[in-house]
Amino acid sequence: MTNQQGPLAPAEGKLGILLPGMGAVATTLIAGVLAARKGTAQPIGSLTQMGKLRTSTGNPLIKDYAPLTPLDDIEFGGWDVYEDNVYEAALHAGVLDYKTLKGVRAEMEAIVPMKAAFDLHYVKNLDGTHIKTYTTKEDLAQQVIDDIRNFKAERGCSRLVMVWCGSTEIYHEPTETHRTLAAFEEGLRNNASNIAPSMIYAYAALKEGVPFVNGAPNLTVDVPALLELAATTQTPVAGKDFKTGQTLMKTIVAPGLSARSLGVRGWFSTNILGNRDGLVLDDPDNFRTKEVSKLSVLDSVFHPEENPELYGNMYHKVRINYYPPAGDNKESWDNIDIFGWMGYPMQIKINFLCRDSILAAPLVLDLALFMDLAKRAGWSGIQEWLSFYLKSPQAEPNVRPEHDIFKQLVTLHNTLRLLMGEEPVAAASQEVYQDGPQA
Amino acid sequence: MTNQQGPLAPAEGKLGILLPGMGAVATTLIAGVLAARKGTAQPIGSLTQMGKLRTSTGNPLIKDYAPLTPLDDIEFGGWDVYEDNVYEAALHAGVLDYKTLKGVRAEMEAIVPMKAAFDLHYVKNLDGTHIKTYTTKEDLAQQVIDDIRNFKAERGCSRLVMVWCGSTEIYHEPTETHRTLAAFEEGLRNNASNIAPSMIYAYAALKEGVPFVNGAPNLTVDVPALLELAATTQTPVAGKDFKTGQTLMKTIVAPGLSARSLGVRGWFSTNILGNRDGLVLDDPDNFRTKEVSKLSVLDSVFHPEENPELYGNMYHKVRINYYPPAGDNKESWDNIDIFGWMGYPMQIKINFLCRDSILAAPLVLDLALFMDLAKRAGWSGIQEWLSFYLKSPQAEPNVRPEHDIFKQLVTLHNTLRLLMGEEPVAAASQEVYQDGPQA
Amino acid sequence: MTNQQGPLAPAEGKLGILLPGMGAVATTLIAGVLAARKGTAQPIGSLTQMGKLRTSTGNPLIKDYAPLTPLDDIEFGGWDVYEDNVYEAALHAGVLDYKTLKGVRAEMEAIVPMKAAFDLHYVKNLDGTHIKTYTTKEDLAQQVIDDIRNFKAERGCSRLVMVWCGSTEIYHEPTETHRTLAAFEEGLRNNASNIAPSMIYAYAALKEGVPFVNGAPNLTVDVPALLELAATTQTPVAGKDFKTGQTLMKTIVAPGLSARSLGVRGWFSTNILGNRDGLVLDDPDNFRTKEVSKLSVLDSVFHPEENPELYGNMYHKVRINYYPPAGDNKESWDNIDIFGWMGYPMQIKINFLCRDSILAAPLVLDLALFMDLAKRAGWSGIQEWLSFYLKSPQAEPNVRPEHDIFKQLVTLHNTLRLLMGEEPVAAASQEVYQDGPQA
Amino acid sequence: MTNQQGPLAPAEGKLGILLPGMGAVATTLIAGVLAARKGTAQPIGSLTQMGKLRTSTGNPLIKDYAPLTPLDDIEFGGWDVYEDNVYEAALHAGVLDYKTLKGVRAEMEAIVPMKAAFDLHYVKNLDGTHIKTYTTKEDLAQQVIDDIRNFKAERGCSRLVMVWCGSTEIYHEPTETHRTLAAFEEGLRNNASNIAPSMIYAYAALKEGVPFVNGAPNLTVDVPALLELAATTQTPVAGKDFKTGQTLMKTIVAPGLSARSLGVRGWFSTNILGNRDGLVLDDPDNFRTKEVSKLSVLDSVFHPEENPELYGNMYHKVRINYYPPAGDNKESWDNIDIFGWMGYPMQIKINFLCRDSILAAPLVLDLALFMDLAKRAGWSGIQEWLSFYLKSPQAEPNVRPEHDIFKQLVTLHNTLRLLMGEEPVAAASQEVYQDGPQA
Ligand SMILES: NC(=O)c1ccc[n+]([C@@H]2O[C@H](COP(=O)([O-])OP(=O)(O)OC[C@H]3O[C@@H](n4cnc5c(N)ncnc54)[C@H](O)[C@@H]3O)[C@@H](O)[C@H]2O)c1
Ligand SMILES: NC(=O)c1ccc[n+]([C@@H]2O[C@H](COP(=O)([O-])OP(=O)(O)OC[C@H]3O[C@@H](n4cnc5c(N)ncnc54)[C@H](O)[C@@H]3O)[C@@H](O)[C@H]2O)c1
Ligand SMILES: NC(=O)c1ccc[n+]([C@@H]2O[C@H](COP(=O)([O-])OP(=O)(O)OC[C@H]3O[C@@H](n4cnc5c(N)ncnc54)[C@H](O)[C@@H]3O)[C@@H](O)[C@H]2O)c1
Ligand SMILES: NC(=O)c1ccc[n+]([C@@H]2O[C@H](COP(=O)([O-])OP(=O)(O)OC[C@H]3O[C@@H](n4cnc5c(N)ncnc54)[C@H](O)[C@@H]3O)[C@@H](O)[C@H]2O)c1
Ligand code: NA
Ligand code: NA
Repeated sequence: MTNQQGPLAPAEGKLGILLPGMGAVATTLIAGVLAARKGTAQPIGSLTQMGKLRTSTGNPLIKDYAPLTPLDDIEFGGWDVYEDNVYEAALHAGVLDYKTLKGVRAEMEAIVPMKAAFDLHYVKNLDGTHIKTYTTKEDLAQQVIDDIRNFKAERGCSRLVMVWCGSTEIYHEPTETHRTLAAFEEGLRNNASNIAPSMIYAYAALKEGVPFVNGAPNLTVDVPALLELAATTQTPVAGKDFKTGQTLMKTIVAPGLSARSLGVRGWFSTNILGNRDGLVLDDPDNFRTKEVSKLSVLDSVFHPEENPELYGNMYHKVRINYYPPAGDNKESWDNIDIFGWMGYPMQIKINFLCRDSILAAPLVLDLALFMDLAKRAGWSGIQEWLSFYLKSPQAEPNVRPEHDIFKQLVTLHNTLRLLMGEEPVAAASQEVYQDGPQA
Repeated sequence: MTNQQGPLAPAEGKLGILLPGMGAVATTLIAGVLAARKGTAQPIGSLTQMGKLRTSTGNPLIKDYAPLTPLDDIEFGGWDVYEDNVYEAALHAGVLDYKTLKGVRAEMEAIVPMKAAFDLHYVKNLDGTHIKTYTTKEDLAQQVIDDIRNFKAERGCSRLVMVWCGSTEIYHEPTETHRTLAAFEEGLRNNASNIAPSMIYAYAALKEGVPFVNGAPNLTVDVPALLELAATTQTPVAGKDFKTGQTLMKTIVAPGLSARSLGVRGWFSTNILGNRDGLVLDDPDNFRTKEVSKLSVLDSVFHPEENPELYGNMYHKVRINYYPPAGDNKESWDNIDIFGWMGYPMQIKINFLCRDSILAAPLVLDLALFMDLAKRAGWSGIQEWLSFYLKSPQAEPNVRPEHDIFKQLVTLHNTLRLLMGEEPVAAASQEVYQDGPQA
Repeated sequence: MTNQQGPLAPAEGKLGILLPGMGAVATTLIAGVLAARKGTAQPIGSLTQMGKLRTSTGNPLIKDYAPLTPLDDIEFGGWDVYEDNVYEAALHAGVLDYKTLKGVRAEMEAIVPMKAAFDLHYVKNLDGTHIKTYTTKEDLAQQVIDDIRNFKAERGCSRLVMVWCGSTEIYHEPTETHRTLAAFEEGLRNNASNIAPSMIYAYAALKEGVPFVNGAPNLTVDVPALLELAATTQTPVAGKDFKTGQTLMKTIVAPGLSARSLGVRGWFSTNILGNRDGLVLDDPDNFRTKEVSKLSVLDSVFHPEENPELYGNMYHKVRINYYPPAGDNKESWDNIDIFGWMGYPMQIKINFLCRDSILAAPLVLDLALFMDLAKRAGWSGIQEWLSFYLKSPQAEPNVRPEHDIFKQLVTLHNTLRLLMGEEPVAAASQEVYQDGPQA
Repeated sequence: MTNQQGPLAPAEGKLGILLPGMGAVATTLIAGVLAARKGTAQPIGSLTQMGKLRTSTGNPLIKDYAPLTPLDDIEFGGWDVYEDNVYEAALHAGVLDYKTLKGVRAEMEAIVPMKAAFDLHYVKNLDGTHIKTYTTKEDLAQQVIDDIRNFKAERGCSRLVMVWCGSTEIYHEPTETHRTLAAFEEGLRNNASNIAPSMIYAYAALKEGVPFVNGAPNLTVDVPALLELAATTQTPVAGKDFKTGQTLMKTIVAPGLSARSLGVRGWFSTNILGNRDGLVLDDPDNFRTKEVSKLSVLDSVFHPEENPELYGNMYHKVRINYYPPAGDNKESWDNIDIFGWMGYPMQIKINFLCRDSILAAPLVLDLALFMDLAKRAGWSGIQEWLSFYLKSPQAEPNVRPEHDIFKQLVTLHNTLRLLMGEEPVAAASQEVYQDGPQA
């Protein structure tokens, strides 16, 4: 991350949040922000709206501490392969009930997705037809850039951010095409098959200096070519994969076991989910992307290489199962085989009956608001301080990403304190170390 | 806590660990330390033995960083109402299997409890007869003091610590007797009924300048009179109730929910346990002491008064059930009713198949070694920095005890850094804030 | 049970179902029957409506096999201490959502409870004031008789049944007052304190020849005096306590373990529930009644006295906890400690996220329809063949009640076959023994 | 099944139980029988040893009712690809602990497997080398026949049975080779690749008139060719797949839901297991065989075609995961989505911490003893009455196999009653219908 620290620009005017993919997560986000504005629902789970932070002078709400865009100043837009307006899409997603949606129906109906940049090769099992046609991928990217500009002008936004809420694309490794910006742009002109739709959106956003977040585990902006572009246009990026559900629980429980020097022999995680996201993930190639994202978590908390007696033989297995009866109510079951004093075994079993999109929506909001803040602060490149929100945090090549949610939170807090001109150091010690030894 | 910081005295000579109560926890501790010395078992779960700490220069094992007493220099002693030697007591407790015990049998048989200071009024359901007779409680305290001195001399110890591992005594509130040292000593002379056996041990230890830890939820050393004595004799104290099992999980999971600003409507906790500890707790008065200890935990993590929308209506219920088939394999089941975005409900269910004494034993070891360190550092009074190990951490009157295990750990680490002459502040920032924004 | 077998009277005219207690269960029943009539919901869980039975000629629906009252011919009435109409009471109970209730709102609003025969001594924690005043309990009983007659006349019913759906009354043992009808009627005149309100309703019903079912675990009709009255007026009775939730699961799983000769060392059952029923059960005296009802189940399935090696040392513990966040969504957690080959231990853990009233409502319907059938068949006294529906089946003094749900079902089926003039025996063999050894 | 009913031959002399596959299940069986003989362990889970049966005259133990071979008269033998004796194999399997095995060590060491008829194509992941060499499969079958004869002679057995306890072979469909005995024998001569090793053992057994049971889900004896051979030699057969663990629970719980007319929308089942059986099942082809066996269960209990409103849309998914930390302690987790009155949803979650071989061992014993009984009774062909023990009961072509464990048990009981000359019918009514309506 690069920090061209000048004065922090104020949050004047409207912020447009652009969402490629207006499915369960995106529509839940929109409904909640609209309802919160009316005071009919609370944005629970959002650190920017409900969270507090200990400072030198008190314990304010984060939104009162840092100059974030108020909810009233947000405009929503996006793209999808289905032409349903956001209200219809929300009904289809089945996350929020009819009673909740009724109160914001008109505003939601007014939000209609633009035609998607889409490719069935990257997302199987979808049959939407609200899709852009194009000659070259360069042409396609230009169409998205035009969409961005039109949206900004029509809605009178002063600033924009983009958060990928589209389906998980299939697993693919970075290639030559993704190594430099030049190669990538060459690929756009040649319709290189390994440029995924999500990369088209990311390219368009970065080209326009619009901060880009990747909420799915896709490669997307996690390639040198697009990081080069971000550097060129001084644009912040973040990814990958919203940290919700089982992985959230993992990054809570694992640090606790590690804190106590308890060993782990095995961790078996299974998930059942039945929404459209699950349908897409039912294809093995799309599954693969998600599984890779989920598997890295434990090692980075336990550091088995440094603690071989405790974590050297840990067997970690993650399963995702498409199970339609669950609907959006994703459910996870974890069996954790631990051992303690003299090696004696114990077990922890965790059954999380979660609602995926309910957990994800506030993350999109927070990420959007913080990315806009970062942009106004003159920061660019990978925003590691937002790892708190992400399952596989992107990091600079030589940096080991931190997964421990408690360390991630301190980092986030300290970054805010720094930005607001407080001693991060003092703040940290203040926070975590209240009543230390004194004379 | 008071800090007469002089030079840290070295860990020369032998450290005697005195255990009032040589039941499941104490015998598991002893077997494990003996086996670890022989290299036949690992002291898993012990931070002092297996844990590491990030310092300015690296990531050393704590035992290599701070001058703790090596396991080889420990001597064990104690008291119990049953006359079984420690090997027989361990067989009876049924925590460790025969194969484990076989290898340290001779050493364990050599450790025989002294006669207990005991009162059936405070611990029901026990039928042991290995009990001191006495005229006044002053006389009784003196007998314990004599035991301490004899043990020290016979075993050639240079230093001692005492850790209460006796049964949970019944619930009682502090009275006038406990308000001043003078009143307490008057009570000893008058056989005041509200001086519990555990207080006799604590009094004797503190009188002798021996650091005292209370591993049970009893009042014991959590009264002004004994804190006055600790101040007088410059002795460190800590309590109450080893943090294991369900409460351990709670102080791991609750901070995670709070970190994410997720609301909690209800937390139902039930426990089934079948060992002697459970038998004692089957008496309502003894149960009460434990329940009080377990209930305070959540409020101190969630601060409902500051976050009423998230935690203001939380319903918290804890149940402990004596269930003989469980034996020492205490098991807990938690149902947590949380809510997220727009108030939508979700649930987390945690089933912890734990082994109580396996979790508790390493805590006794760590507490003993750290209390000895504190003593050598010239610290006295309540050692809040050891809250990490305790279910209801004792704290100075006007201080809110911290329950969040992650904050407790940072405090513990920083205290060690301070003691070793590092910048705690720098250390903290080092640890928690690795890759912040740079130019 | 006595069987004055004459010709089976047809189900002509309307059947009135009278419900003392119009809370969660009663209102859920009524809403469901009304919706089923309109074809907007299905009466799932009702054997009379959805169940089938293998006969000599086929596999018909039970309602097509036996001459039961059709749903269209049912009228509902009842009593409660709250004056809310049934629609309001249903909203308050919170079992069915607004959308479900909307479609039957008008019909439900038209049903208004009559004033209750009530006594705070028997049901604590209620503050309703819609209560009959009276001089003697004889007078009170007469008022209920008048209510019954008026209801029958006003609604033009040809037949009636009564099902107690009131709160659980406190635990009390039968006394002299309950030994003979004469003593009981003497008690009515003298305001004997041990005549509970539920007994007033039962007395009134039986006096009028109206079949009476007790859906709660109260004593009620399980006393010689009222059985004498039932014999006198040739009226069928059944009880006690609808078999739902955890006990339902128990009578399913326990026969399975027994079938396999697997041993059981312990069965720990805990429940959390948050509705008005739970509030009443939060009083220890009311709890007691329920606990007694729940504890007897296992013994009657396992017969420990006959199978001491397998079940002789079983430790069975049941806990009920009032936990408001659960609402009507009662939840149970069972831990079952079993053992197999050579005594090796295993565990089964069952978490049932049930909806209490959703499970209970169809039982009320079935019991009402079957009791009316019994009456038309000329049967009277305890209807053991309906044990299938009940947690503590009432039985003749010297008969051990059967709890195994599978045996109970065969009994129910065979009783119907018998009634319809089929060979019960043949039917049984037909059903359970399809492909036996042949030449 | 064919029933050449003559007089039931007595259980004179010794019964040899031959086990192809001497791994976890087989060695656990043998240790248990040996220990039971010495009176040091009980054969829990065995119906023949611990189970009772209601007859016209009482409630005797099954072993006292039917003339079964006593445990003292059993001889064990078998084959494996590893040359370890049975004691070593048991240690390796890790089911029974050292203390249990010690007492029967000498007897177990004396039992050494014969060289296996083996083919890596059918069972992957095994590296044993204790394997027969052969020219044609006809030759190989002859070697097994010779083994059988030698064993019988050497051990002085009067009767034999064979129970396949070998690893699960890969999934394959029956072909022409399996259609007639002639084609099969032609295949033996031509080394037909689709003749699996388990078929060689089955062929050899049936050829010798030795009853054959298939404890794995392999095709094995479930092909016309071998049934033809069984008919020719008048030999009983049974299969497939011991009913243990998750499937056992399913066939207990599903009948309970069906009894109550509760609907099922989804049933998700996951398993984690870590023994050699799991290692073999980690190969997709071997997995497939097991999954097919597990999936059929629910349909046959629920009959969705006859009960479409309740079970027509049920989504059933089964997963098996190799997870080494579990060892032989296979664990299953089921999530069952049910619905009740008016379609309201509920959930049941079952976590079974089972020990696979502990559950399977008594089934092998029972099957062996009952198959020998069948043989002595003159029965031959498929023994449907033993479906109680099997996950995918073999049945005659036009017969739908029964999976409901309670119906299976009645069938088993009635078959025994029939055999012993009682009225099965009367017995059935006696058992299931105790206190019906009488005058
Ligand atoms: N808790 C969570 O819900 C969670 C957590 C982590 C990550 N995610 C990720 O967030 C993403 C969104 O999840 P969701 O539950 O809303 O899924 P969803 O299936 O409901 O919505 C995704 C939408 O993206 C659309 N889409 C697909 N490709 C597109 C394209 N190229 N352009 C425009 N639209 C496109 C689909 O039509 C669909 O409407 C998924 O990738 C998911 O893996 C979600
Ligand atoms: N995880 C845990 O095991 C855990 C956690 C927190 C707290 N604790 C507490 O630690 C204590 C010990 O637990 P345990 O499992 O070893 O119990 P235990 O019952 O096995 O051992 C306690 C021993 O103390 C003895 N005792 C009682 N009163 C005494 C007295 N006045 N003097 C001397 N001996 C006395 C008893 O005879 C018994 O042998 C209990 O108070 C328990 O509540 C244990
Ligand atoms: N699954 C189940 O819901 C279930 C299962 C078994 C038994 N039961 C029993 O069924 C009964 C009803 O359960 P519920 O959930 O509907 O409870 P509820 O509390 O919602 O309803 C009971 C109603 O009875 C009324 N009442 C109390 N005493 C009365 C009296 N003397 N006369 C008239 N009304 C009176 C109360 O005011 C209340 O409205 C309870 O006894 C409960 O224990 C319920
Ligand atoms: N609960 C249970 O354990 C259970 C339940 C149902 C079915 N089963 C089935 O029973 C069988 C045995 O289970 P296990 O746990 O004992 O497995 P295991 O892996 O411990 O033992 C199987 C043994 O069979 C041997 N083997 C494989 N192919 C052979 C061949 N052709 N000839 C001779 N030996 C051969 C292997 O070497 C191994 O020792 C498996 O097929 C399993 O699927 C077991
Ligand atoms: Na409980
Ligand atoms: Na799985």
